Amino acid sequence: MRTSKLYAPTLRQTPAEAEVPSHQLMLRAGFIRKVAGGVYTYLPLAWRTLRKIEQIIREEMDAKDGQELALPILQPAELWKETGRWEVFGEEMFRLVDRHNREFCLGPTHEEIITDLVRNEVRSYKQLPLLLYQIQNKYRDEIRPRFGLMRGREFIMKDGYSFDKDDAGLDKSYNDMYDAYTRIFNRCGLTFRPVEADGGAIGNATTHEFTVLAETGESDIVYCENCDYAANSEKSELKTIIPPAEEELPLEKVYTPHTKTIEAVAEYLNTPIEKNIKAVIFQNEKDQVICAFVRGDHEVNDVKLQNVTGAITLKMAEESAIRAIGGVPGFMSPIGLSKDAIVVVDPTVMEMHNAVCGANEEDHHYKNANPKRDFGDVIVADIRLIQAGDPCPHCGQPVKMTHGIEVGQVFKLGTKYSKALGATFLDENGKEKPLIMGCYGIGVSRTMAAAIEQFHDEHGIIWPAAIAPFEVVIVPISAKDAAQMEVAEKLYAQMKQAGIDVLLDDRKERAGVKFKDADLIGYPVRITVSPKLLDAQQVEIKVRKNGETINVNIDECSAKVKDMLQNL
Amino acid sequence: MRTSKLYAPTLRQTPAEAEVPSHQLMLRAGFIRKVAGGVYTYLPLAWRTLRKIEQIIREEMDAKDGQELALPILQPAELWKETGRWEVFGEEMFRLVDRHNREFCLGPTHEEIITDLVRNEVRSYKQLPLLLYQIQNKYRDEIRPRFGLMRGREFIMKDGYSFDKDDAGLDKSYNDMYDAYTRIFNRCGLTFRPVEADGGAIGNATTHEFTVLAETGESDIVYCENCDYAANSEKSELKTIIPPAEEELPLEKVYTPHTKTIEAVAEYLNTPIEKNIKAVIFQNEKDQVICAFVRGDHEVNDVKLQNVTGAITLKMAEESAIRAIGGVPGFMSPIGLSKDAIVVVDPTVMEMHNAVCGANEEDHHYKNANPKRDFGDVIVADIRLIQAGDPCPHCGQPVKMTHGIEVGQVFKLGTKYSKALGATFLDENGKEKPLIMGCYGIGVSRTMAAAIEQFHDEHGIIWPAAIAPFEVVIVPISAKDAAQMEVAEKLYAQMKQAGIDVLLDDRKERAGVKFKDADLIGYPVRITVSPKLLDAQQVEIKVRKNGETINVNIDECSAKVKDMLQNL
Repeated sequence: MRTSKLYAPTLRQTPAEAEVPSHQLMLRAGFIRKVAGGVYTYLPLAWRTLRKIEQIIREEMDAKDGQELALPILQPAELWKETGRWEVFGEEMFRLVDRHNREFCLGPTHEEIITDLVRNEVRSYKQLPLLLYQIQNKYRDEIRPRFGLMRGREFIMKDGYSFDKDDAGLDKSYNDMYDAYTRIFNRCGLTFRPVEADGGAIGNATTHEFTVLAETGESDIVYCENCDYAANSEKSELKTIIPPAEEELPLEKVYTPHTKTIEAVAEYLNTPIEKNIKAVIFQNEKDQVICAFVRGDHEVNDVKLQNVTGAITLKMAEESAIRAIGGVPGFMSPIGLSKDAIVVVDPTVMEMHNAVCGANEEDHHYKNANPKRDFGDVIVADIRLIQAGDPCPHCGQPVKMTHGIEVGQVFKLGTKYSKALGATFLDENGKEKPLIMGCYGIGVSRTMAAAIEQFHDEHGIIWPAAIAPFEVVIVPISAKDAAQMEVAEKLYAQMKQAGIDVLLDDRKERAGVKFKDADLIGYPVRITVSPKLLDAQQVEIKVRKNGETINVNIDECSAKVKDMLQNL
Repeated sequence: MRTSKLYAPTLRQTPAEAEVPSHQLMLRAGFIRKVAGGVYTYLPLAWRTLRKIEQIIREEMDAKDGQELALPILQPAELWKETGRWEVFGEEMFRLVDRHNREFCLGPTHEEIITDLVRNEVRSYKQLPLLLYQIQNKYRDEIRPRFGLMRGREFIMKDGYSFDKDDAGLDKSYNDMYDAYTRIFNRCGLTFRPVEADGGAIGNATTHEFTVLAETGESDIVYCENCDYAANSEKSELKTIIPPAEEELPLEKVYTPHTKTIEAVAEYLNTPIEKNIKAVIFQNEKDQVICAFVRGDHEVNDVKLQNVTGAITLKMAEESAIRAIGGVPGFMSPIGLSKDAIVVVDPTVMEMHNAVCGANEEDHHYKNANPKRDFGDVIVADIRLIQAGDPCPHCGQPVKMTHGIEVGQVFKLGTKYSKALGATFLDENGKEKPLIMGCYGIGVSRTMAAAIEQFHDEHGIIWPAAIAPFEVVIVPISAKDAAQMEVAEKLYAQMKQAGIDVLLDDRKERAGVKFKDADLIGYPVRITVSPKLLDAQQVEIKVRKNGETINVNIDECSAKVKDMLQNL
């Protein structure tokens, strides 16, 4: 293709709305345009990259006997009501009615639809295993869409579903997909980690997230350098911390004016933070109040708390709800709350001695709280978030933390959907059994954004060759110069012949403009045709990734570039 | 691929819901499954065919400098309100609100979105021409979705939009697309006609429909064998028929009991049908009553009537509305209606002498109606539907009629959307002008269905090779026979090597079942590996289209098949 024919409007300014590099650069380099919050047009450059990512996914899915199909985006409510998820999805689901007032949603995922499909067709273990997948738009009405394609409301996903006759089959399907995903993200040229993730909603199921490491990532990943442990911070198991023994002193209520935060009360009472007990108060979807207590220097892990309490959603509790259970915001205590409150205490808190906690009374705290003695009947469960330096759950060494962008997830669903929807098969003994399922997602548009988060500099994007919109751009210093254009055209023809995805920048712009655009858009290789090198029958090859340049003979250029692209 | 790994559940019975061959066969052969009315899952076989059609479209669009992008399906209402189409689309548009109560629709088409895109980016004539296209799901809430993929509510379209600086540019873009469409449908192996169609909604714009000829088609096409005229029957111009002169007799009201139809009154009064005047009464979107009058043996052309009256929608009038304008259902007359009625009379009616028409009174008609004398102030306009035998508007010879399925349309939009949305550019003289647009659609999923309507027999589908889910199926008579399987595997490997899209039917089913499935699914070529031919080192090649079989040496099979596929 020639740049003069390419619709890639670049912007000089970074749009103010864009906070993260991928969003800024995709707007500036002419990859995307916003149509509504979280809803974007993919311009030709983005579409080329997306189709390359899709093709890599297809090849690796097909290599594992995956079969591509296309399920509808428009999904009838009935199926979602059968599994109960019509309610669960809440406001995140886009819903509509047709002209006959029948309810539909825009598919946020397709477990219901695919399970409905196979329950009507798969009868026998002989038809298993089965791996079906599709690549299409998904819809989630995010409360705050942001970061461009990282958290959109309309986005492209590959979703795949496996059906097996037994757990061994599911293990194989899951491992196949784990392998395929590893190959896919490797082929995309990304640095990533598969991390253990939380499978809470489905009874602590096995699941891994594939996470592209990037400073701007919304996922916190904890990993150990001593062993190969890596997990989403939400998922990490934690050991209870046992402090030195102390003599238990009598509980004492003290006046602590204006000390609504842990830091304030610790300072006021001159106690170390870790001798204080922190309260975080939530409401679940039934508006029950859930009071979570962790040590003062710890944080509550919402996901763990949700799993422990079986809450479908958690939000910060309203003051009126807190007062209704006998609590006082800023001075919360497990001691003396109404029985309507669900009280969850982290095991590390239960081991504390002579601690400070709220007194459920304005401007008052308790000193010398000894949870085992004073807290009465509470739920004790690991609800804290791992922190850098916490001991690795596998080897005990201090863990490190990093940020990542979740681009894929593999998940053992088991029989959750097949049981809910009655998707059964007859096994070797003629016995009816529910299908054993796995599901496997890749955020396609998010993978494109994650690649940019991982690979960019102050000049623009730095595409891995495999997913670059074009692998190579040929830039004649002046498109008005016949000699330069002749060489540029010749190289263009040679490279196309050699199967290189090449763009010829034939615009009558200044060289500086063309170089800036090439860096901004981020083609892995730039060939510059300049008058001074032409005298020596040479052109310059520049590698976007490291800025290195070499001069090569025109006749050797195409082969040299083909070679270089293998490693870019 | 191997059949044992292919998810293509075939059905023995034709589902009762399916009325047309493509719907019946796609259900039976495991191509589609219904999820809701007009909403289908495309199973792997259908998806393969769809992707082949898409690829042909891409190649031909790209050959004309088309650039692929992807516009959102979820579209904000604001843009549609700017052009006034938020109202126009009525109940056919799927609408929804997001969690913040902002209005959206599911794109039935993308003129608004694409025009909004370029109005923000295209500034100069130097950026023109521009041809952008996409392939994606479209949504229309059809009142009665039917015929499977022929009239769905979620369907796949290619939609393209051209932007030019002047009419000459639009002519070129239009002709380019006309050429591309001709190549696309030729490459798909379809028998089709480009026909003149109605461009009424946009001031009689130039437009052609690409229509696949098929008995089950919903489009009536009129064509002339004497010249190259071809048009959608809705579009055809018609000449006024001038009957022999007659002496005008006085208007006379007569008693005609139980004669609510033209046939009944003609019989009762013993007049030829063509001496009667037929009334058809509609209501438009504002509930105004539109009374259309044509000769007794003619039919009203709704599209022409809509264009003449500027109606956005037309539906049959309700009795109460008819009575409100002084009419009596079954006995309608232009004589004596209230001024609120919009009365449109076909020019051929205006030339009639001493005709019979209703008297706006129960069980009464007028005899000797002479429209020019008796009808007063009415709109006279060509509103009749062409019929076989009518004179060709180009050469005057009697036209013929056939049925077709509209699979594509090219349309000169002009400045309708660019003016409404303020999409302008600066021309060579620095003058601001609206962009001149064309739009170009192909029903991708409908093209698949149309191919089946055109090519099938009592055994199943007969795919053109270019869009068959697989070009060739290899069927060993017995997959349990090692010698047969060895040859089958060898041929399979050879054909894959030769770039043939081949399927190996490795199922341990009876040969008859495999043959029946091969015919039902409709692979263009079947290779049968049978014990008796193996002795002679031969296999059988069977062509689905004509049932012809030849025996070839195993070593020559692959080359022979490759050759044959060129013409299938």
